Amino acid sequence: MSYSAYFEQAKEQQLNELKEWLSIPSISALSEHKKDINQAAEWLAAKLTAAGLENVEIIPTKGHPLVYADHLHAPGKPTILVYGHYDVQPVDPLHLWETPPFEPSIRDGKLYARGATDDKGQVFLHIKAVEAILKQEGKLPLNIKFCIEGEEEVSSPNLLEFLQTGAERLAADAVLVSDTSLIEKGKPAICTGLRGLCSLEVAIHTANTDLHSGSFGGGVPNALHAMVSLLATLHDDKGGVSVEGFYDDVAPLSAEMREEFVKQGFNESKLQQELALDSLYGEEGFSFVERVGARPTLELNGVYGGFQGEGTKTVIPKEAHAKITCRLVANQNPQDILNKIERHLRAHVQPGATLEIQQGEKANAFNIDPSHAFLQAAADAFEKVYGVRALFTKDGGSIPIVETFSRVLTAPVVLMGFGLPDENLHAPNEHFNLENFDKGLLTIVEFLKSV
Amino acid sequence: MSYSAYFEQAKEQQLNELKEWLSIPSISALSEHKKDINQAAEWLAAKLTAAGLENVEIIPTKGHPLVYADHLHAPGKPTILVYGHYDVQPVDPLHLWETPPFEPSIRDGKLYARGATDDKGQVFLHIKAVEAILKQEGKLPLNIKFCIEGEEEVSSPNLLEFLQTGAERLAADAVLVSDTSLIEKGKPAICTGLRGLCSLEVAIHTANTDLHSGSFGGGVPNALHAMVSLLATLHDDKGGVSVEGFYDDVAPLSAEMREEFVKQGFNESKLQQELALDSLYGEEGFSFVERVGARPTLELNGVYGGFQGEGTKTVIPKEAHAKITCRLVANQNPQDILNKIERHLRAHVQPGATLEIQQGEKANAFNIDPSHAFLQAAADAFEKVYGVRALFTKDGGSIPIVETFSRVLTAPVVLMGFGLPDENLHAPNEHFNLENFDKGLLTIVEFLKSV
Repeated sequence: MSYSAYFEQAKEQQLNELKEWLSIPSISALSEHKKDINQAAEWLAAKLTAAGLENVEIIPTKGHPLVYADHLHAPGKPTILVYGHYDVQPVDPLHLWETPPFEPSIRDGKLYARGATDDKGQVFLHIKAVEAILKQEGKLPLNIKFCIEGEEEVSSPNLLEFLQTGAERLAADAVLVSDTSLIEKGKPAICTGLRGLCSLEVAIHTANTDLHSGSFGGGVPNALHAMVSLLATLHDDKGGVSVEGFYDDVAPLSAEMREEFVKQGFNESKLQQELALDSLYGEEGFSFVERVGARPTLELNGVYGGFQGEGTKTVIPKEAHAKITCRLVANQNPQDILNKIERHLRAHVQPGATLEIQQGEKANAFNIDPSHAFLQAAADAFEKVYGVRALFTKDGGSIPIVETFSRVLTAPVVLMGFGLPDENLHAPNEHFNLENFDKGLLTIVEFLKSV
Repeated sequence: MSYSAYFEQAKEQQLNELKEWLSIPSISALSEHKKDINQAAEWLAAKLTAAGLENVEIIPTKGHPLVYADHLHAPGKPTILVYGHYDVQPVDPLHLWETPPFEPSIRDGKLYARGATDDKGQVFLHIKAVEAILKQEGKLPLNIKFCIEGEEEVSSPNLLEFLQTGAERLAADAVLVSDTSLIEKGKPAICTGLRGLCSLEVAIHTANTDLHSGSFGGGVPNALHAMVSLLATLHDDKGGVSVEGFYDDVAPLSAEMREEFVKQGFNESKLQQELALDSLYGEEGFSFVERVGARPTLELNGVYGGFQGEGTKTVIPKEAHAKITCRLVANQNPQDILNKIERHLRAHVQPGATLEIQQGEKANAFNIDPSHAFLQAAADAFEKVYGVRALFTKDGGSIPIVETFSRVLTAPVVLMGFGLPDENLHAPNEHFNLENFDKGLLTIVEFLKSV
């Protein structure tokens, strides 16, 4: 039977299985979901076994477990390591979800659930592609390993540690990752660049208690004033970052790179309309795809302090908090950037306010040459299934482990994504387009059979 | 029996009664406490009746009810209207309370509970002072009315409306209010000035959904960036307010006023130490008591947007919120100030961000001449009980109804407060010093018998 026919008849059963997995709220950032994380790992291990993979193991770590499996019966053929993650982002603000995030629901050819596209849905494709080849042909045309982790959304601290000592077990000729997206419907892409990441949390403390704005207002520091006036210094009024030295290690955009970006034919006014924005906003002198693909950024992900309830409370808050992340490019070093930001904040804080800074995640940016054979094979596979050759793009996101894999395993990483850019990953109403579910399965089979 | 002896023997019973009232979480700002508000009003009506007052009535309004009572059997004598409130402020952050806010607890001679000093504890003194005179002497030396409302903490919208039509019922020769404080332990004060108030809520909206900071970061507006950069424009770096025209109707401080402020002998370094602050902070060129007593202010009471949970979430938030209040002085008109702030905000908002402004409360500042006979009688009463004459001060807080009473009833308002400035009103661990509970009862009896 053709693979198309095979997947067509298996579809309903496969979607039901995926919905089961998506029902497990495996949020890695929130400790109360530890049980769900474990359940999601067990579900995955069972499915890998059922697919015909061997040496399936749930490997405990200091944090959330890794799930490993392999099938190594093609001597002389290359070994591919499939990497992905079974953990998901938090779901708030919950009230904006049209259907509950952990009650998967199909509407208009899209599967809605937290993790549908990032990344359970995409990992699932690889399991089912391998299962299909084994069922149809009784063997695999190459050697394959799976390493699926539960901490990608919190920057993979324990996989990084595992790689320090356990790299041999994951040794491969190439790493295959599906955690990125097509350019748009029908326009596949292979990502050849990912931004790095660093994060920090900032707290400001003023008095040792909240104070009445009548009795004290005007005469004591207000933690929120101190916070907003401090945070406002981080950007200039042209959308750039004002931290001294922030851009030191950012490579200027070459003419060739700018040309590649133009090739994507990105429609800015369509995006603006889709997001219901009066205007896009960003660093002056760059297009949207350049800003996201090749420029670093400093984002406020959360700011809070004082009264948030209904009505008015005339309080002078004693503390205020901010959560900040940067996306990094080229040779920016995450530790260096964190140090520069910390220095900036300490230099600009208002008198009477005490600053507390906690540095968090650190990941380098990733870049790969598109002429590599494995990347060309991936582009061929896309072309066979989608009818158009994949473009080589730069993605604005960060998958911290990708740069580490490429460095530690000295293997090319093939970023073959089946998501779409508007699938609300990390936001309410995350979903996965089922057209790419179908085509994704076929593209992976093509790729595995061709390398 | 002397009044001292009377109150001494009644003390335990009276404190138990007050604790009962303080156990009722009558938070006017939060609609889920409507039942508690009604219960607190009923409790109050019952106690007024038990004290010997007449015509006790719970007067419904569109919001929370007023409680009225009177005793009008002294023809030819003046009529005093006692005003106060039985509603309380919200209690968050709850985790900072040493004992639960609605489980009153006495420690070190202080009664801890939300509402202990603001204002249930102080209203309670008046009920018990009147009860004492009636029990000891069988009659009152003057006519008295009580009007205790349930909406002071949300700016008295319905009492204001009641005063438009029902002012006759509240007609009096003077209004007596205990909702302010002594200068410090043993140093009584009569407040001759209160700041006005206006409030607004600001919302900023950017995209129609939260966005992933990888796929979009750097290329779209971030509601939190827009909010902090906008809020930061409201103040200059000398602690002043930057809104055009904000200070237009603020009277300059006269040499006499500055002298009055100096007389208070306020210890700034002691305050700084008590609040564990590196330094006080405020408008350049003014002392703490001047800043709080005679200068206007613009405070951020709450700011929030994006992710507030544990860990990191790489989200670009679609909305951000701020709650703002101003304290006003002299001839500043609250509506005029709100319009000026709104104009400022609309002129400074960042491209790509949509601004939504909701104007809220509006109250004029209040000022009274200390030479008035009722104020001098109050100072005498304080002197008899505390052994030192009360100083005439300006308080930084706002009791919006005070200015309205003085205007609508054309009666002087005597602000005879028994709180202390460090009793954490509007903050965790609000309390009432029992020394002033005891002396407050005696002072009120002295005052009522002398006018």
